[in-house]
Amino acid sequence: MAAAPVWSVDPRTGKQREQVAVEATPAEVDTAVRAAHEARGALADRAVRAAFLRTAADRLEAAREALVEAADAETALGPVRLTGELARTCYQLRAFAGIVDEGAFLDVVINHPDATATPPVPDLRRHKVPLGVVAVYSASNFPFAFSVPGGDTASALAAGCPVVVKAHPDHPALSELVAKVLRTAAAEHGIPAGVLGLVHGFDAGIELIKHPLITAAGFTGSVRGGRALFDAAAARPVPIPFHGEQGSLNPVVVTEAAAAERAEEIGAGLAGSMTMGVGQFCVKPGLVLAPQGEFGDRLIGSLMDAVSKVEAGVLLDHRMRDNFVAGVTERAKLPEVESPVTPGAGGEHTVGAGFLTVPAARLAEGGDHDLLLEECFGPVTVVARYTDDTEARAVLSRLPGNLTATVQLSAGEAAGEGLGVSILAELTPLAGRVLVNAWPTGVAVAPAQHHGGPYPATTSTSTSVGGTAIERWLRPVVYQNAPEALLPAELRDGNPLGLPRRFNGVLER
Amino acid sequence: MAAAPVWSVDPRTGKQREQVAVEATPAEVDTAVRAAHEARGALADRAVRAAFLRTAADRLEAAREALVEAADAETALGPVRLTGELARTCYQLRAFAGIVDEGAFLDVVINHPDATATPPVPDLRRHKVPLGVVAVYSASNFPFAFSVPGGDTASALAAGCPVVVKAHPDHPALSELVAKVLRTAAAEHGIPAGVLGLVHGFDAGIELIKHPLITAAGFTGSVRGGRALFDAAAARPVPIPFHGEQGSLNPVVVTEAAAAERAEEIGAGLAGSMTMGVGQFCVKPGLVLAPQGEFGDRLIGSLMDAVSKVEAGVLLDHRMRDNFVAGVTERAKLPEVESPVTPGAGGEHTVGAGFLTVPAARLAEGGDHDLLLEECFGPVTVVARYTDDTEARAVLSRLPGNLTATVQLSAGEAAGEGLGVSILAELTPLAGRVLVNAWPTGVAVAPAQHHGGPYPATTSTSTSVGGTAIERWLRPVVYQNAPEALLPAELRDGNPLGLPRRFNGVLER
Repeated sequence: MAAAPVWSVDPRTGKQREQVAVEATPAEVDTAVRAAHEARGALADRAVRAAFLRTAADRLEAAREALVEAADAETALGPVRLTGELARTCYQLRAFAGIVDEGAFLDVVINHPDATATPPVPDLRRHKVPLGVVAVYSASNFPFAFSVPGGDTASALAAGCPVVVKAHPDHPALSELVAKVLRTAAAEHGIPAGVLGLVHGFDAGIELIKHPLITAAGFTGSVRGGRALFDAAAARPVPIPFHGEQGSLNPVVVTEAAAAERAEEIGAGLAGSMTMGVGQFCVKPGLVLAPQGEFGDRLIGSLMDAVSKVEAGVLLDHRMRDNFVAGVTERAKLPEVESPVTPGAGGEHTVGAGFLTVPAARLAEGGDHDLLLEECFGPVTVVARYTDDTEARAVLSRLPGNLTATVQLSAGEAAGEGLGVSILAELTPLAGRVLVNAWPTGVAVAPAQHHGGPYPATTSTSTSVGGTAIERWLRPVVYQNAPEALLPAELRDGNPLGLPRRFNGVLER
Repeated sequence: MAAAPVWSVDPRTGKQREQVAVEATPAEVDTAVRAAHEARGALADRAVRAAFLRTAADRLEAAREALVEAADAETALGPVRLTGELARTCYQLRAFAGIVDEGAFLDVVINHPDATATPPVPDLRRHKVPLGVVAVYSASNFPFAFSVPGGDTASALAAGCPVVVKAHPDHPALSELVAKVLRTAAAEHGIPAGVLGLVHGFDAGIELIKHPLITAAGFTGSVRGGRALFDAAAARPVPIPFHGEQGSLNPVVVTEAAAAERAEEIGAGLAGSMTMGVGQFCVKPGLVLAPQGEFGDRLIGSLMDAVSKVEAGVLLDHRMRDNFVAGVTERAKLPEVESPVTPGAGGEHTVGAGFLTVPAARLAEGGDHDLLLEECFGPVTVVARYTDDTEARAVLSRLPGNLTATVQLSAGEAAGEGLGVSILAELTPLAGRVLVNAWPTGVAVAPAQHHGGPYPATTSTSTSVGGTAIERWLRPVVYQNAPEALLPAELRDGNPLGLPRRFNGVLER
């Protein structure tokens, strides 16, 4: 049987551009994983891997023009957005280099012997060590930031773990190009090319998750794809952690007082957030609870104005376009659902943005309308009109886990009047990021960031963005009664590496 | 169908003592979980739960005499050991109260807006919140420390999570008694009794892991039982974290130089560790790599002397006794396996300690001898005699994951001569705790402790003992652009609760 070809496709035309590669056979997946496994030692020195991450950022920036062009040809996301995304990706690589330098992620805890404890405590020194080779499953919608050089790869390399990436079929040529840049950067620090493996093909992705030398996996994509891989990871003879970010409905609550105060601003802000990147963000606001009545009507009017002006856009591939068109059509047919601006097919290769409205009561009671509580990838949102807080709360209680939950409050509510505090408390169980008077699109790279949420938003309690993303690829080890001469430098009393640590109960920073 | 009775059994005679309860029906499991779910709010205040944990320790200590008597009647572990274990358990509850007070586990990270970041960073404030109701599966071998009031329960309550315990069938009466004490302590702080549920029965344990309101589980027991529950947790519509501690082989390497220097001391130390608690510790050294030749022979001689003096002991139940007798018999029959002191049946209800020897080459090559690489619960160990380092290393490379790995070094090696450093590096991938010139039995309760290891030792990268055990029951949430008036006190700029935190990149303690 001939190896299946991997084509680069232009989403603006649906036409094949070039054959990039062939799908990896099981033997090729094995070779990639073994090469990554062999590269572990080259990442052992923290200084080397911090330097590698910085060089990777430098080399990506140096290749910006070619990379953005390659990315645009396969994703149609446009050079402005892609240039920004590449800058974000380089910023992220450097941020992880800083995290490696600081070393707080090693979580060093040292206890000297304590005969007064029950039972007595011997000399114990704990830190974290890399798990081993990490499998990364790229996303379609961020060809840099959540793909080959993205947060999963950056955080795994920062942790000291080589990576094998399963390329997303929507940008195979870019994936090859970026992998080459990263390997060049690795070579500058004496790190073998195997530190970053790249495989193409659906079956190769399954092989990868089952490989005995894979120790953990990161994934960004659909619930269906993520769950299949999660199940495979859990079913292995040796199960491994699977950190899947599977998308989200991202509910928004607009209070009556907020709508009274800022209906037009909220409508316009919502339009911008839900159509950004042609609605292809996992944090796109997909369900908005807005009040019935005059203020909510004003919000809808403003949303209509703004959304109807949005130009038709090209989705990442034609399968997504078909799914979007089918998805919005099916939703629009539900009883009592209206389409003030009808989403759906634009030109032959584009889609038009739009939104649906529905009485919140329909979502509170279950049944066919539950379809509206499922993510629909693309430029559409659902505005559920509620008559009172009880109805809004009933809808919230039926939502699955989310990456984000947002509330739009009035100035008074934001200052603590009325229901402000209680709404925040009600939204917290729903999501990993809770926003006030802001929009969920745009996930900042910052130490405090958390990009994850209750299932199905993610398959673990971890994050794929922000400083703590590194924690996913480490495990603790404690040394008991090990003499100073044998201890890693990280665990010596004198703290020669100047690490933040917990030393005999005292937090040293 | 009548509800199945739950009997308390005397392991010294195999006779039923009394009927304690009946096995929980699915409806009763549901009632327990819902009551626990309702108790979440009562644990929301950190000061309340710290006080509750301290009162729980006080009340357990006040009931010491009755508790130790009840525990001994069902486990035959003896009052000395059980008194010590209860003291450890109370120490652990108070240690977690201290951890709750300090609040470092909340992992507070605050970022003020930063327009210079790529993309710009908004106001982000992250901390950790409790997951919800936790299921705890008790172990047989530590009726206090890894049972109803043990580390899983203490850490879950400390995190703010109510608990439903699946009682171990080897000490149902004690489990009921302890649950009552803990609920009394809860009532003193206005916490409803539902905060600590208790259910009996194998099927109830399965119901529990599948219950939609269970958010995570802790388990200590066998690989078989742990894996079945892990699989059920992963197969749920909403999968949940399953932290299973499943036992371990706990390899020990004795270097030639160490044996030359301290053969007798090592033999005697090993005898003490492998027979402690009638060999019923999950960290019992189950495989010892000792050199061939004179020094190793001296070690064997010393081990023979010490083990042959150990009195026959009562195992926790008669099923374990049967398994032990069958397990050692099957192992002893393997080619080239010898039994310098034959382990096996003692009296009608007891077992005798012993050990087996085998050429290390047999373990390096796979086949029938792989049985010797599986844990055998009870007072037995296997000494594999190696001819050179290559052979010893070949055996190590074939081991599954372990809770502990130990090396006995000479004074010179411990000071850094010879292979000291490299042996430590080789043992690190095998286990979560690496010991030098010590024995793995005895798991201190300390901030630095890590009681977990690569699968099958544990099903996650977490620990069930030590300060970081609390991390298992929490998830991060970040607030974006939330005004001060709406923020939890933990996340306010002024740090009114005095928490350790990362504030605009600076670690504050």
